[in-house]
This record gives sequence, C-alpha cells and structure tokens, in this order.
Amino acid sequence: MSLVIVGSVAFDTIETPEDRRERIVGGSCTYSALAASFFTRPKIVGIVGEDFPKETAALMKRRGIDLKGLKIVPGGKTFYWEGRYGDDPNQRDTMRLDLNVFGDFQPNLPPSYRKPDILFLANIGPSLQEHVLSQVARPRLVAMDTIRHYIETEPESLDRVLRKTDIYFANDEEARLMTGERNLIRAGRLLLERGPRLVVLKKGEHGVLVFKKDSLFAFVAHPCDGVVDPTGAGDSFAGAFLGYLDRAGDFRASSIRRAAVYGSVLASFTIEDFGIERLAALKKSDIEGRFAYLKKIASI
Amino acid sequence: MSLVIVGSVAFDTIETPEDRRERIVGGSCTYSALAASFFTRPKIVGIVGEDFPKETAALMKRRGIDLKGLKIVPGGKTFYWEGRYGDDPNQRDTMRLDLNVFGDFQPNLPPSYRKPDILFLANIGPSLQEHVLSQVARPRLVAMDTIRHYIETEPESLDRVLRKTDIYFANDEEARLMTGERNLIRAGRLLLERGPRLVVLKKGEHGVLVFKKDSLFAFVAHPCDGVVDPTGAGDSFAGAFLGYLDRAGDFRASSIRRAAVYGSVLASFTIEDFGIERLAALKKSDIEGRFAYLKKIASI
Repeated sequence: MSLVIVGSVAFDTIETPEDRRERIVGGSCTYSALAASFFTRPKIVGIVGEDFPKETAALMKRRGIDLKGLKIVPGGKTFYWEGRYGDDPNQRDTMRLDLNVFGDFQPNLPPSYRKPDILFLANIGPSLQEHVLSQVARPRLVAMDTIRHYIETEPESLDRVLRKTDIYFANDEEARLMTGERNLIRAGRLLLERGPRLVVLKKGEHGVLVFKKDSLFAFVAHPCDGVVDPTGAGDSFAGAFLGYLDRAGDFRASSIRRAAVYGSVLASFTIEDFGIERLAALKKSDIEGRFAYLKKIASI
Repeated sequence: MSLVIVGSVAFDTIETPEDRRERIVGGSCTYSALAASFFTRPKIVGIVGEDFPKETAALMKRRGIDLKGLKIVPGGKTFYWEGRYGDDPNQRDTMRLDLNVFGDFQPNLPPSYRKPDILFLANIGPSLQEHVLSQVARPRLVAMDTIRHYIETEPESLDRVLRKTDIYFANDEEARLMTGERNLIRAGRLLLERGPRLVVLKKGEHGVLVFKKDSLFAFVAHPCDGVVDPTGAGDSFAGAFLGYLDRAGDFRASSIRRAAVYGSVLASFTIEDFGIERLAALKKSDIEGRFAYLKKIASI
C-alpha cells in the first residue's frame, strides 16, 4: 500500500506555562509523516523556504519518508507560527502567524504520488485540500483534518471536502464547532451524516471515539501525568492511525481499532517533549510497549 | 458478605435546561442502595420525616434493602434540596437547601449492622462519617464519598476519615479541589498518599480511573447521547461498585475492575430519567446487556 500526506511544514515558537522554545520545526505534515513512518514509508507534499534545516530533512529521509513532494523555495522563508498555551493544554492562542512561502502554496503532486492507496489531507486550507483531491486517481481511502480557523472561515469548501472524505479526524472542540452540538456522541453521529464513513473524535487525555454508521469504538488515553508541549498531538494521532492502516493493508473493524490505539500512543509520545523531539528519539519497541500497556490497563 | 450504607435520603427539586421535577425522592443513600440492590442486600442508615413516601420504602423493601437503620421522625419533614443544571450536566447550582430532620441526624447503627464486611460512608458530613466509624468493628473495607461543600468547610475532619478509608470515590472536580492539581493522573496519585488504598476517579462521560499504588485501571463510559437528570450518578456508581464487590466476596484486581464497570453501567442508567425512576424500572438483564456492550465497544 502507499500513503501520501499533504500538509504544512513550519517553524513554531511555543510558549507553555513552564517553558518556551523559539523556531523549532513543526507543522501538520511534519508530525503526521514522522508518526506514520514507524509503520510505513509515507510520501509527503509540502513547501518550505531555504531556511528549513537540513538536519530535519535528513531525519525524515532516515525515517523512510519520501521528500519528492517537498518543495524548497530558493531564498524563501518557511511558514512561521507562534502560539501560547495556558494551564489547560487543550487551549491555545495564536500570537503571530507569517505565511511566508506557504502563502503561494499550490500543492502539486509528483507523478509517482498520484495513485496512493491512502491520501491524508492534513491541516491546510480546504480549497488546497480540494486542489489535491483533483490530482489523484480515486484512492482507496481519503482522510482529512482541519482546524477552528477553517471551520469558521471556509465552511462551504470544508463541507465539499468532507463529502469526499472517508475518515474525518476532529478533536472535541472542532466536533462541537462543526455541529453546534455539545454532547460528543450526538456530534460524532451528526458528522457521519456529512459524508465520512468514519469519524475519529480525539478527546486528548480522555481518549478517543471512533464513529461508524452502526458501531462505535471507544478507548482510553495513555495516563499522562504532565504535558510538556501539546503541539502536534492530533497530527501524530492521524499519522500513526493512517500509517498503521497502510501497513495492515485492510480497513477491517479490528484494524481500525488498533489504528486508533496506535494513534493515541504516538500522540502520547509527542506531548512528552517540545516539537518533534520525542518522535525523533522514539523506537519501535517504545511504541509496542505503550500499546501493550494501554491494552493492559483497560482490560476487564 | 454484607454492605452497610450510611447517607442522605431526601426530596429533590430538579431543574434542567429542558424540564423540571418537584419534590422527587433522592439522596446519596437512596441512589447507592438502589444501585447496590442489583448485586446484594444492602442495609441502610438514614433519617426521614413522616412525609417520606410509603411507596418508596415499599420499593426499597421489594429490592431487598434492609430498612432497620432508616429512622422515621414522627411529625418531621424530610431533607429538601433544590438544584439547577445548566447546559453542562457536570455543573449545578444549589437553589435551596432545608436540612429539616437531617439537621439533628446522629447515625446510630442497629446491633445487626455493626459488623459489616463493607461500610459505605456516602455523602454526609465528615463528622457524621467519623461517628459511624466509631460504631463498627473493623470492616474488611471502608469506602467514602463527599462533596465540594465538605471539602471546603471541613477539610480536617475529612482528612481524618480519608485516613481510615480503603476506597475513596471522587469526581474530577472534587479530585482537583482536594489536591489543587489540574492533571487528573497526578491528582489521583496525590489522593492515594492521603490514606486510601484505592482512589476511584469518576469522569462522567469520559469514564473512570481507578488508582492503586502500583497500578491503574482506566475505562470508557457508556456512550450517552442525552442526559435527562445527572443527579445521583456518582452515588449509583459507588453503590453498584460496592454491591458488586460484596457479591463477588473478594477484593482482587479483577473484581475491582469489574466493579468499576458495573458502577459506570448503573450511573449511565440513572441519568436516563429523573430521580430514581430509571433505577426503579431496571432489570438485571439490562445491566448485563450494557456491561457486555461496554466490553465490546472498548475491545481491541
């Protein structure tokens, strides 16, 4: 199978109540590709400036990520985001945002990318997501993610993408915003009516819900006693979820369930350090160990 | 084995965003005893006025609850509470509270109650809970519950009860208030240091965490797409948890895990209707059906 991921590659400056990091590598594509790389060899589509660190590109290559679709703009500057978290790791404020080369991003897929089994439209504008969809032969599975900003500013375009999507990833805030429904069970079911065959609702410390028309999967999160940096948790979740499915080679219910737990596992590692630090140091045995631990603490 | 429950028996007036009920039967003892009665024959200790409905006493007897410890004060009026819920079912305001006969309540255990295997100190003032503890031969297991009001007004007395407690039931708000810790994993571990061997942290729609010194159990909640009346959910949880343990006859880890899931199941039924209505109509097969469903939706 094959997995193509389209999303943002960025520099992030992150402030938490305890600490601050300046211009570290982030972005939805970066996190999800690194998380997926523990299961398969994802191909990524993104754009960066000449300032993008060669060490990060080298790390991605070492992890088996195909960078043919990563455009480097000579003399350009990479997308920059500055965010601040309060005491609640689920709440953050954007302090500054410079689109830089991302402002003119037209994601064009290399020919070798155009027949993916799985296509992941990570968090970028829904009109760009539509542009990507127009370039691929019907993949076996299309997945997407978005954020509050696009839900509020481009709802029609978002709804069109949603109708062409098989798996929609949302966190609790996004699911409520999309549906106007406070109860997450009702919100998840309402989202299913908008197109996707599966809605994956990520509840952070409270685990995950996977909605299908006639069934539900619910699982707890890894018990985390301290979040260092929540950035990229959702992207890591989606990357691992889809990376696992790509490796499994099928979309059976049992594979979906395991994919959701692997998603949860990778997200739980990402938040243990700033940026991609924890993912960069991660070993496959760490992942399997945590998967087994989660299974153990939730068994009756 | 045997289970003694000491707590409040009350009239509640309940207002939710959708509906309102006047003077329906409630109270921590009532909910927990009814929930426990699906597993064992609990003995209750409480106080009511002459206005307490004979039909409720008859229902309790039919459900095998021993009422020898329920004092009826001639000419007295039953404890009265009026509460209002907003859109968030986890938040409520007390609009009125008349202690009535509960103001002079001195829980005195009948001789046949004084050697219980399990003693549940449901939500009453911690000084009353201490008074109860002084009357029993060391039970195999002491469990307790409390509310925000006592955490704020009687912290020293509460800490003394906690030191004599084996199982402490708390919801997320109470755990944070008791410890000053926002992260629930850290809060649960801090509570273990205050005395109990087990801390059962109820997270409502997000499930339950059971903390023991060297282990953790985490489980999801029943997916509930609409709460009619959240009152009594925590009491029902604790009652079912302890009722199941009393029936199981041991406190092994596997029994504790099943007890927590049964607790979750009974709480999920209680909130489906006002007051004790759903518990009054419940059948054992409903409980087993929902237990099996929860196990199914959370298996990988």
